[in-house]
Amino acid sequence: MLPAHFTPVPLEKAYRLLNHGPTVIVSARHAGQSNAMSAAWACALDFAPPKVTVVLDKATRTRALVEASGLFALQLPTVPQAAMTVGIGTDSAVTEPEKLAKHGVPMFETPGLDLPLVAGCAAWLVCKLIPEPHNQQTYDLFIGEVIAAWADERVFRDGHWEFDSAPAELRTLHYVAGGQFFAIGDGVAV
Amino acid sequence: MLPAHFTPVPLEKAYRLLNHGPTVIVSARHAGQSNAMSAAWACALDFAPPKVTVVLDKATRTRALVEASGLFALQLPTVPQAAMTVGIGTDSAVTEPEKLAKHGVPMFETPGLDLPLVAGCAAWLVCKLIPEPHNQQTYDLFIGEVIAAWADERVFRDGHWEFDSAPAELRTLHYVAGGQFFAIGDGVAV
Repeated sequence: MLPAHFTPVPLEKAYRLLNHGPTVIVSARHAGQSNAMSAAWACALDFAPPKVTVVLDKATRTRALVEASGLFALQLPTVPQAAMTVGIGTDSAVTEPEKLAKHGVPMFETPGLDLPLVAGCAAWLVCKLIPEPHNQQTYDLFIGEVIAAWADERVFRDGHWEFDSAPAELRTLHYVAGGQFFAIGDGVAV
Repeated sequence: MLPAHFTPVPLEKAYRLLNHGPTVIVSARHAGQSNAMSAAWACALDFAPPKVTVVLDKATRTRALVEASGLFALQLPTVPQAAMTVGIGTDSAVTEPEKLAKHGVPMFETPGLDLPLVAGCAAWLVCKLIPEPHNQQTYDLFIGEVIAAWADERVFRDGHWEFDSAPAELRTLHYVAGGQFFAIGDGVAV
């Protein structure tokens, strides 16, 4: 079942979902195996078509699924998901095959897409891998083209984040280190 | 003259300056020409040695200075600098040669480094370009190795951001679009 408030974001606005620098959860599936991991190093790369970068360590199971399937999702966890986000960024499915269940990660499916997504997030970007073997091997750097995007319409609508008026539990997380996050704060008028 | 509170950050902690996804100002100098521009698309890439990515459009003067000198700085503007940050991200030195003066950008120099830095920021990372012609040409994507870093010790010390206890005007800016920023918010306990 789709989460409530799960609303498409036009592709030309998709870069705005990452512009403010949130921590993401990367999810992928190949041959029936699903996984998800947290990543602080994801960034917008282009407007149209929208592209993203994300750094995926060679030790991770998610990276192998991305390389095999050519598809991944970035989603933006929210304040109540801080402990879960640390948990699936620390544990590896290589040594903890049941890590998603252990950390209670609420997965869901979208029609027509063979990719697991995480409920409770503020936004979701589905990306097709643009293979760049030199970047992947030398820098663990992956490039994807965004082919679909959604957001929780309570917090992102009409192409803008509405953190100031949305429920506080929809604020995105911004990781530093050692289990320390900051939530995104208030709007700054220019 | 160096800004007050300008304090070195150990290189192994430098990635933490970018982990929470702040908007940056990119500065560079070549053959006596200095420039600075805002960029929302900068990201940590590695821990040790610390590396970063930043997207620099082909139309910008700053990119030409980075390509010619092989050196650039990323610095993190703060809430009172929001209008300046939009100004130097919108105007180009190609058409507005005096854009830094127009927007009142407070530049300073550090001993032994031929690179202009911007005062009033929360942190500074000096980076040596790692030439990757394919990335630069195809994606406008630049990779740098961080060779020196500093922070305002009131807001980053002992390897951690202290936004909750620092003066509010030292919060970093996180850009969305159309002159809309969010300040980084409060810490989230895990």
